[in-house]
Amino acid sequence: MMTPPVRPSQPRQPQEPVRQENLRTLNLELVFRHILSAGRPISRTELAALTGLTRPTITRIAEELLAGQLITEGAVTHSGRAGRPRVGLTLSEKGPAGLGLDIRADGLAACVVDLTGTVRHLAFAPSAGRDAPDVLSNLAAMAGAAIDAVAADDLAVVTATLAVPGPVSAGVVRSASALGWRNVDAGALLRTATRHLDLPIAVENEANLAALGELYASDNSLDSFVYVSGGLGIGAGIVLGGQLMRGARGWSGELGHVTVYPDGKPCPCGSRGCLQTYASLAAILGDAPTGTLPAIPGADATTGTASETGATTGTAAFGAGGVTGVAATPEAVITGRAEAGGAETLAALDTAGTALGIALSGMLNILDIDTVLLGGSFSLLASWLTMNARAELDQRVLTAAWAPVTIRPALLGPDAAVIGAALTSIDQIRQHPTGWLTRQTAVSL
Amino acid sequence: MMTPPVRPSQPRQPQEPVRQENLRTLNLELVFRHILSAGRPISRTELAALTGLTRPTITRIAEELLAGQLITEGAVTHSGRAGRPRVGLTLSEKGPAGLGLDIRADGLAACVVDLTGTVRHLAFAPSAGRDAPDVLSNLAAMAGAAIDAVAADDLAVVTATLAVPGPVSAGVVRSASALGWRNVDAGALLRTATRHLDLPIAVENEANLAALGELYASDNSLDSFVYVSGGLGIGAGIVLGGQLMRGARGWSGELGHVTVYPDGKPCPCGSRGCLQTYASLAAILGDAPTGTLPAIPGADATTGTASETGATTGTAAFGAGGVTGVAATPEAVITGRAEAGGAETLAALDTAGTALGIALSGMLNILDIDTVLLGGSFSLLASWLTMNARAELDQRVLTAAWAPVTIRPALLGPDAAVIGAALTSIDQIRQHPTGWLTRQTAVSL
Repeated sequence: MMTPPVRPSQPRQPQEPVRQENLRTLNLELVFRHILSAGRPISRTELAALTGLTRPTITRIAEELLAGQLITEGAVTHSGRAGRPRVGLTLSEKGPAGLGLDIRADGLAACVVDLTGTVRHLAFAPSAGRDAPDVLSNLAAMAGAAIDAVAADDLAVVTATLAVPGPVSAGVVRSASALGWRNVDAGALLRTATRHLDLPIAVENEANLAALGELYASDNSLDSFVYVSGGLGIGAGIVLGGQLMRGARGWSGELGHVTVYPDGKPCPCGSRGCLQTYASLAAILGDAPTGTLPAIPGADATTGTASETGATTGTAAFGAGGVTGVAATPEAVITGRAEAGGAETLAALDTAGTALGIALSGMLNILDIDTVLLGGSFSLLASWLTMNARAELDQRVLTAAWAPVTIRPALLGPDAAVIGAALTSIDQIRQHPTGWLTRQTAVSL
Repeated sequence: MMTPPVRPSQPRQPQEPVRQENLRTLNLELVFRHILSAGRPISRTELAALTGLTRPTITRIAEELLAGQLITEGAVTHSGRAGRPRVGLTLSEKGPAGLGLDIRADGLAACVVDLTGTVRHLAFAPSAGRDAPDVLSNLAAMAGAAIDAVAADDLAVVTATLAVPGPVSAGVVRSASALGWRNVDAGALLRTATRHLDLPIAVENEANLAALGELYASDNSLDSFVYVSGGLGIGAGIVLGGQLMRGARGWSGELGHVTVYPDGKPCPCGSRGCLQTYASLAAILGDAPTGTLPAIPGADATTGTASETGATTGTAAFGAGGVTGVAATPEAVITGRAEAGGAETLAALDTAGTALGIALSGMLNILDIDTVLLGGSFSLLASWLTMNARAELDQRVLTAAWAPVTIRPALLGPDAAVIGAALTSIDQIRQHPTGWLTRQTAVSL
């Protein structure tokens, strides 16, 4: 066969030359990254040593960051010796904040985080049905309430991210069978419903956002993992080398539609034997084909802000069953039946665990990732699913022979997506503080 | 449930500050990238306009690149007006070169490419069995011959990359069932066998390298694709956003061990129903369980260098069945039987195509990639496999409902991996020309 001529690779975007004007931006962002990663107040002297920049440059940059409410002065951890405690620079708990909104199996959620990544507001409301305009106008009301609540703490919400259970392109939900949505322009609907708030809005897959939430929550100790979001549907968020792998069009991680049994049960998507038909909440509850949940009585609204919990550290701490606690979730029904020894439910959980293990094995063979976090509803059902799933992983992941696979519940539980959404919003400021500073300057003129 | 405090993300490596000394390096590499991506001679004036750097800076950088044999002067494409043709800078066809070596189903291959990415030498030898020291000492001899051959063209091979059919870590082949290898330190064996050549050697999975070969060959018009390498085993190389996705440990793309039928045929890996048991060459030839190929008579060595083909453009052009042509490959046996209407072979090809489609559907649902290239042996069998595979993809890939999947043969055929290996070697110089320049200066002192 002909060997065609091989041509050189073309770097798509030759970088910009480094000149004086962007040197200022680069160095400001460099200093901010060091303050961000320090995780404690850090002195100007230390910053000079870490960055190699001169002390006057550090002082000038610190003034800019202080004026923009991105950092504050704080006491450097006491050295133990006598003398006055030194002061240092640390991230501000006032100033810019990020909003997250989530549409999930059991209702709607809103979350605000500050620049330090601390949750400052978390609210939940039971589902208002599946009609898109209704759902999004309810979310808009929750967004308004969240913005008002944190304004009392001198926080300004600058951007919002909406989590949706399906693939998204440019704000349009292409398919969310859990909600019966197809080509719903959730971004436009939410922008219309929040136009009085003048808020930039991004829309992203909930499993991707939940994976980012877990990445933050782990303090980046987890470098690469698959986050499985169980619920009405099943999605996955993929983190590789500390980065979310969104795929070519942002539609990666459609684990629920990976074939487990080629000649298996029909799925609403048009295929057969999809994981979703064996391991969704509906499938475990015994109502697989339609993908809809039986009505669960007793769902109950609870909301709260972090300041109400009286946490002294400025970090939200919610008690068990607190903000996200709802009387009778599908997960509670399943665990109730399983604990009572219900044979059908136990068999359904076994089937789900095995199917999950088979689909995940393929995923890990493809991705080369060795850690699986069971999130969303699966974080609550993990003890019933893990054993069968692990048996399949051990047998079917090629590299498991010399590099064992870890499978465990996710840290943040069902709140991972809304927290991840809020963190994604604030991350825009964390990554590009100069954008915020420029806007502040323009406003103050 | 408790919501743990969410902590800020930590950028793992705060970048270096930009100072005068690395400004020189950054600007040299910026200019070199523009010459690289131009694909034609480019004038100093154009480079100044593109980079925003001053003309004296461009002149100084050009002198450094010319002295290091990284670029040459060439005629800028004639404008059509009268007057002397302007001169410009273009990549050198002399100077540094990269070596690729490949262990494949039907034998061993070696390839040298120059800085422009042009293949300057391509040689093939039939397999010398599966014994690792034998295989690697044969490859060492081919490496020596390749280096000597291109030295006549003023090319200096600076680094080598070895392609192996299995997951690799730090030069050790963890598992290559096609060769019966497990934990073979191919890197160390090849370094020992080539110690007289003083050549840095990297070892990488062949499907990954073949995917890179295809990426280069497509001139980066393909941004994201899955390259399926069929052969004794089945592997995949994943390119996402123009980058190879190697996974957390470099073991991504183990498509051959993705489960297709959970209760299916046992696989030598210890699992059941792996794609490999339905779609490897051995499976199609009717010898699936052991994963070994029946002896094929008539295998024949052919070697050649690009200069022998008399190509006038400096680009190697090999005739059909030329350098890589071997009398009776497994692929030739299969296509011969299929064309003669052999019912067993046709049924085996149908089974293979269906199994391939099922496994690929899961892969595309996970990765969100819409293009599949059938490579290696599959590039020769594509017409027999594609129809069944496409039927499964259309049914089982969720996003296929609104974004069709493309499946087609790869461009480079069975040579993709060895060409990709050579390109990976030279890419080190292309990405970091200053490393080469520093070394040149040290040698000339």
